[in-house]
Amino acid sequence: MSAASLEQRILGALRDIPDFPEPGVTFKDITPLIADAELFAEVVRAHAQPWQGSVDAVAGLEARGFIFGAAIAVHLGLGFIPVRKGGKLPGPTVGVDYALEYGTARIEIHEDAVAQGSRVLVVDDVLATGGTAAAACTLLESCGAVVPGVEILVEIEALRGRDALAGRAVRSLVTV
Amino acid sequence: MSAASLEQRILGALRDIPDFPEPGVTFKDITPLIADAELFAEVVRAHAQPWQGSVDAVAGLEARGFIFGAAIAVHLGLGFIPVRKGGKLPGPTVGVDYALEYGTARIEIHEDAVAQGSRVLVVDDVLATGGTAAAACTLLESCGAVVPGVEILVEIEALRGRDALAGRAVRSLVTV
Repeated sequence: MSAASLEQRILGALRDIPDFPEPGVTFKDITPLIADAELFAEVVRAHAQPWQGSVDAVAGLEARGFIFGAAIAVHLGLGFIPVRKGGKLPGPTVGVDYALEYGTARIEIHEDAVAQGSRVLVVDDVLATGGTAAAACTLLESCGAVVPGVEILVEIEALRGRDALAGRAVRSLVTV
Repeated sequence: MSAASLEQRILGALRDIPDFPEPGVTFKDITPLIADAELFAEVVRAHAQPWQGSVDAVAGLEARGFIFGAAIAVHLGLGFIPVRKGGKLPGPTVGVDYALEYGTARIEIHEDAVAQGSRVLVVDDVLATGGTAAAACTLLESCGAVVPGVEILVEIEALRGRDALAGRAVRSLVTV
């Protein structure tokens, strides 16, 4: 029997949770994956490997993007920028409001989080419509960063989130 | 001039934010520390080093505990357990309510997050009154874990959070 590919192992470790966070949505639960020491480490390496030496910092999206993003940052020997929901960061912030299906949401970074011209890799666990990830890229870029790429664990292809991220290299470890 | 100790460098990287999240509270902002690639990596190594080979998993407290906890887990070659605020985890959960100064809060883990008898290291950034960290230990233990220790970046000594964690080895990298 041949060893399962990383993609197969990731798909096998994700758990489908029907009707979460709302009826009709099937949520991809990543907790079994991060509980698997070997798989978690391998996922971090797979996310990081293409960016070795070519980015200056890693930004992760609250809250699951912190789990992957922080580990990727340490793996790459880089600093970590938390992109947080509105009102969570203690210092002076810059933020952006973006549309959800119903209403709007806000994400923020500290106003001094980004060095001018620095190359920042954006990390999140799931790419759905891409609204949050696109807002994060726009926010970081408005502060002087260059966002060469977005690393995603699971891309939900039917929601076409990739289209919202045009101009950056979007890499997902698995597509569903 | 001798090199600054890790403790001095951590203290130098923390930023005091007065009156956050409410008037009269001085918040210890850790974002300058995690933005410093070398210091972030050194902090992760310092947290992890005493536990190499003696714990089975790392639990981090939402949300800043995810940043340190996930990186520590990968450094130790272990899986990561997110301890989340109520209502955030998608699968069946077990939780505990605990008292805040005014009102209560709730933290949860997935009901299958802990292997019976497994040794789980708890990680958070700041230890204040210890309410959340103590609730996390109690919750993990009620699910069959052993919690040998709690790793904290910054301990606010005057609030005596350590007293709430009796029976576990509480280690903080700096005390203020």
